[in-house]
Amino acid sequence: MPELRKDPIHGRWVIISTERSRRPSDFAPEEKRSVGGFCPLCEGNEDRTPPEVLAFRYNGTPPNGPGWSVRVVPNKFPALRIEGDLNREGEGIYDKMNGIGAHEVVVETPRHTESLATLPLNSVRDILLAYRDRIVDLRRDKRLRYVLVFKNYGVAAGASLEHSHSQIIALPIVPRRVSEEIEGAKTYFHYKDRCVFCDILHQESRHRIRVITENDSFLSVAPFASRFPFETWILPKTHCPSFEQMEPFQYEMAAQILSDTLQRMHRVLSDPPYNYVIHTSSFPELDRDHYHWHFEIMPKLTKVAGFEWGTGFYINPTLPEEAAEYMREAK
Amino acid sequence: MPELRKDPIHGRWVIISTERSRRPSDFAPEEKRSVGGFCPLCEGNEDRTPPEVLAFRYNGTPPNGPGWSVRVVPNKFPALRIEGDLNREGEGIYDKMNGIGAHEVVVETPRHTESLATLPLNSVRDILLAYRDRIVDLRRDKRLRYVLVFKNYGVAAGASLEHSHSQIIALPIVPRRVSEEIEGAKTYFHYKDRCVFCDILHQESRHRIRVITENDSFLSVAPFASRFPFETWILPKTHCPSFEQMEPFQYEMAAQILSDTLQRMHRVLSDPPYNYVIHTSSFPELDRDHYHWHFEIMPKLTKVAGFEWGTGFYINPTLPEEAAEYMREAK
Repeated sequence: MPELRKDPIHGRWVIISTERSRRPSDFAPEEKRSVGGFCPLCEGNEDRTPPEVLAFRYNGTPPNGPGWSVRVVPNKFPALRIEGDLNREGEGIYDKMNGIGAHEVVVETPRHTESLATLPLNSVRDILLAYRDRIVDLRRDKRLRYVLVFKNYGVAAGASLEHSHSQIIALPIVPRRVSEEIEGAKTYFHYKDRCVFCDILHQESRHRIRVITENDSFLSVAPFASRFPFETWILPKTHCPSFEQMEPFQYEMAAQILSDTLQRMHRVLSDPPYNYVIHTSSFPELDRDHYHWHFEIMPKLTKVAGFEWGTGFYINPTLPEEAAEYMREAK
Repeated sequence: MPELRKDPIHGRWVIISTERSRRPSDFAPEEKRSVGGFCPLCEGNEDRTPPEVLAFRYNGTPPNGPGWSVRVVPNKFPALRIEGDLNREGEGIYDKMNGIGAHEVVVETPRHTESLATLPLNSVRDILLAYRDRIVDLRRDKRLRYVLVFKNYGVAAGASLEHSHSQIIALPIVPRRVSEEIEGAKTYFHYKDRCVFCDILHQESRHRIRVITENDSFLSVAPFASRFPFETWILPKTHCPSFEQMEPFQYEMAAQILSDTLQRMHRVLSDPPYNYVIHTSSFPELDRDHYHWHFEIMPKLTKVAGFEWGTGFYINPTLPEEAAEYMREAK
């Protein structure tokens, strides 16, 4: 059973993932790891993953066989397990609990060679709809407090499988960075009576210097205080606290701008490794006025080093305004 | 002039480092970068760095020439600049200021082929004394609020020069992660009337399962909630809020345990890339009772990926107790 442990100084939680236990010899440098070979996520290999929890299937194909466009399965080596009780307990001055939660893999395409940047729009929309459906379902489990959707693309960004996929982790705790962001937005709202994300949208739409691309519903922008070169946020133009509460047509618009943004990134940075994370409210009803869901996309071009670990500060060697210009001109 | 920009949601500061401005083509994959060749940090090339701000020299050798054991120079491509005023100002809803601060390089040895794990103890002690002297000096500048000492070892840990070195950055702001840690320790102190780090020392010394090594003055330990496989902290056994306030003989003891710990890590993990950071109080007089300086050493064995960026949570695939056992047995 994985264990959640809390640092007694920061209150920072860590998942000690015994399912994937690694010994010193397992940390081989990358060039020694094998690429290619058998892929459990490819169409036809459905029996090599745990049974699917969701799939968008062509009419009538039975579960756990071929004939799907997007498929969601539990992670075979989950960081957290869905069965059991939290069993919160102390160990002297330390606190821990069982690693209860969900860890799912969203297989974005049946074909091994495709990537999110090359998929047709309706496939990207289906991926976003799969995220939505899983968030809605996982929220029903009262033990869970937060659902995180993220994608690691490329070995340097932490992807351990080559086949295009994203991940969903549902946690029994609202993570500190998430509540910090929501609290920050709340403080701003109390001070100004306006949503900070809406204010960002207005200022960026007026100034244009950090705008990358847009459509009727979304703005893609290089944030003013970008932590990383070519960091990109995609914000819905209409205030909306949580990803799963959008109007149905907006998933189509979100797919369009996500695809457009990733294609530009692919062109400007030669298919870079990247991470993206959906930032969404944990309690949409409570965070209705001040929180505003969005994508954060972080190409992995520089290393996070001692300075960043020591301070939480970041050193970014690329002006966000210059990055936005490259991205704007890339189409 | 580098710029400090503040994220309006989190209050997170970022250094936009125009001195090192990088365009898309500069982010070449690592294998394309050259290794070897001319090294500006080697003895004999002193004229290829900015003039030294500190050096421990053999008797009578003049500055900025050969004849030193440790040498501290300003970074040639500093993330922050020491000259000028902060000029705090707004830009619509955003806040920024000039990137004032110091960025120095501690050249740990005159010889290119040595590393911290192979240097003799008196050299390691001299490196720690150089850290101390620079912290004391930089603290005199009233514009600066925090001095961070850190080391990036190996390309995967962010080192851009092969020659053994560490870095010092002095900032005009106490970074958020630093004040979080100090505040966390203060909260614990107010609740228990004891230092949390002293409590960690007592519990770990009694249980032994996470102890790696120790000497009369220091304990080297795998923290209970390790974020990374083989994460290691070195704590002074006697309560002391700041690195630069130790008794002179303790730098010798610190050198001994740092060297011992790095040698074990080298053996167990085959010379891994790593970062270390000295966590020390920004205002030792104010933090006297509740803060306790220490080293945090983080081998770079896994990738920080979307989940970590989204939550501030970490997934660690190695039990700290197992890591400690490997490290204990490595001598």
